[in-house]
Amino acid sequence: MKKIGIADTTFARYDMYRSAADELNSIGSGFRIERYTVPGIKDLAIASQKLIENGCDIVLALGMPGPEEIDKQCADQASRSLLDVEIKHSVHIIEVFVHEDEADDDKGLGELADNRAREHAVNAYDLLFRQDRLQRMAGTGQREGHPDAEPIR
Amino acid sequence: MKKIGIADTTFARYDMYRSAADELNSIGSGFRIERYTVPGIKDLAIASQKLIENGCDIVLALGMPGPEEIDKQCADQASRSLLDVEIKHSVHIIEVFVHEDEADDDKGLGELADNRAREHAVNAYDLLFRQDRLQRMAGTGQREGHPDAEPIR
Amino acid sequence: MKKIGIADTTFARYDMYRSAADELNSIGSGFRIERYTVPGIKDLAIASQKLIENGCDIVLALGMPGPEEIDKQCADQASRSLLDVEIKHSVHIIEVFVHEDEADDDKGLGELADNRAREHAVNAYDLLFRQDRLQRMAGTGQREGHPDAEPIR
Amino acid sequence: MKKIGIADTTFARYDMYRSAADELNSIGSGFRIERYTVPGIKDLAIASQKLIENGCDIVLALGMPGPEEIDKQCADQASRSLLDVEIKHSVHIIEVFVHEDEADDDKGLGELADNRAREHAVNAYDLLFRQDRLQRMAGTGQREGHPDAEPIR
Amino acid sequence: MKKIGIADTTFARYDMYRSAADELNSIGSGFRIERYTVPGIKDLAIASQKLIENGCDIVLALGMPGPEEIDKQCADQASRSLLDVEIKHSVHIIEVFVHEDEADDDKGLGELADNRAREHAVNAYDLLFRQDRLQRMAGTGQREGHPDAEPIR
Repeated sequence: MKKIGIADTTFARYDMYRSAADELNSIGSGFRIERYTVPGIKDLAIASQKLIENGCDIVLALGMPGPEEIDKQCADQASRSLLDVEIKHSVHIIEVFVHEDEADDDKGLGELADNRAREHAVNAYDLLFRQDRLQRMAGTGQREGHPDAEPIR
Repeated sequence: MKKIGIADTTFARYDMYRSAADELNSIGSGFRIERYTVPGIKDLAIASQKLIENGCDIVLALGMPGPEEIDKQCADQASRSLLDVEIKHSVHIIEVFVHEDEADDDKGLGELADNRAREHAVNAYDLLFRQDRLQRMAGTGQREGHPDAEPIR
Repeated sequence: MKKIGIADTTFARYDMYRSAADELNSIGSGFRIERYTVPGIKDLAIASQKLIENGCDIVLALGMPGPEEIDKQCADQASRSLLDVEIKHSVHIIEVFVHEDEADDDKGLGELADNRAREHAVNAYDLLFRQDRLQRMAGTGQREGHPDAEPIR
Repeated sequence: MKKIGIADTTFARYDMYRSAADELNSIGSGFRIERYTVPGIKDLAIASQKLIENGCDIVLALGMPGPEEIDKQCADQASRSLLDVEIKHSVHIIEVFVHEDEADDDKGLGELADNRAREHAVNAYDLLFRQDRLQRMAGTGQREGHPDAEPIR
Repeated sequence: MKKIGIADTTFARYDMYRSAADELNSIGSGFRIERYTVPGIKDLAIASQKLIENGCDIVLALGMPGPEEIDKQCADQASRSLLDVEIKHSVHIIEVFVHEDEADDDKGLGELADNRAREHAVNAYDLLFRQDRLQRMAGTGQREGHPDAEPIR
């Protein structure tokens, strides 16, 4: 039985946890989910570390940085810290960030957040249970939330 | 009995410690506060570490970066270092920074600093004593100091 | 018998693994290749660490960052994390990144990716088996993927 | 008997060590000073670490970054590394940087460097010997080298 | 008998190793030189670490970043990683970078690279054998490769 951690924030405007958990449960079994909610994206690194210390085999870190310049700086700090935790514990943390300026309106933003959370949930499942599937898709321009890119042959 | 650390600076132009401590004491009990004052925001990381080494279960790091480009760089350095300390000790540090250019005048700046310190004091309390409250607010666009954002359903 | 790790991504639009592996096998022997495929460039650091933990003597980290500003930031985060893993384990990781805006069209991008992967595969081989060859080329303006620069005498 | 380390550079155009040491000696006693001079600001982190390894209870790191864009980048690297050393050893390092473009001419720059070194020497003394003094000044807009800012009541 | 490490790259367009080694040998004795050549500046950190692990008492890291924006980013990554290695091992690493856009033509660039490598070789020698010489030059505006700046009295 594997454990998948999901860290999310009260700052985000969309409940990406529901999308990720729903997708995971629709793919397969052999795991259970543990959740840790924090105020903002800068708190996701320690949330992920606490999930790992609590036995999680992989973590999804869900966040929605704002559209301002300072938000980009915060997102950068949060990302680097997630990477630090990942390397410290040698456990995959999949960063699932949706920037508020990636969509034109709330409807588009909600759809993007839902899609990206779902597609990265599949990535988490693949890293845990079926790495060969990732290897078959290597170099093929996979994108999460947006349409895939064209592979160059 | 939990211990909440509060690190603050002589550089800041508003006494955010008073706001945070007042708010904490108004929410509940079961904790005591320890304070460590340093010159500037770059000193908040080591101040937070010393509070943690002294037994604090969570830390609020209060700072007011200036409005210039170099101040943004200093704030970025300070933030990253706070994250490093957090990960090193696996103890939450809540960064409460108020940038001088976030408000139009001193009155607005003081109100923002007071509000943000108070709202993050609640976050600290929630992380320590009532994590379920944070989970119920996940993905709902909570903002500290400014009005909350609209959740996307 | 040495082990050469190759980490690559499903995000990349060109299969650089094939180029690197093909080049390595054409240079010599005395090694075998282990592959680890992850979703994106930010996952290359932990992929490289897992390859090192699994006994690899050197790692090639293959990635294709997108052309947007946010992609540059992600590439920067990924690079720094690769450096952290390298220093932590004292094992060479050769970063082989091809930025989508380095070429005018897909044909040029594919050729660049193929060339760069091959030339860095030679670098990996040299670092493992023939360091004297690198020393003889020191200060001579070697470039990977693009034509070499002129040495200044 | 405490030990105060002072790290400085041959790159700086003003002898800030003299200012800091003179100020320290004029405030009080109970300490002695150890000095370590390095070429440039990027060497201040290891200089500070060596002073700490040699028993210093606090360190003043004195530097004068140049006015160009690349100098800002170097100063940023130097600052981050100073923070890393601080956190590694849990010893305060007070960064005293004077940027060449902070003053209009050499006279102003010299005065700024002298003032800032002296005011941060007082901070170092306060952190070591009278932390209550810092606490009383919390949130009052203290500035080092420039006139203090107005506190917001 | 001390050991001075020199790390250099095949990417550089000028053989700075020869300048540094020649200068070191002309200053004095009591040391021997060990060299480690890598492909690019991002490999200098691990090269320096390997030299330190091999017993070097100080390291000169020689590199020539290109003139593009992406090259500045790579140089920044390389510098930070060199600082990390320095702090990890508490051994001085002197970064000797010559940016391609620091000179107007190849002749100027070659002279700058030669001068900077030589002047930093003297710094390395001073840090190892005559620290008092550095202390006497503290705050005097020393520059490596370019003419010294005016000290402010």
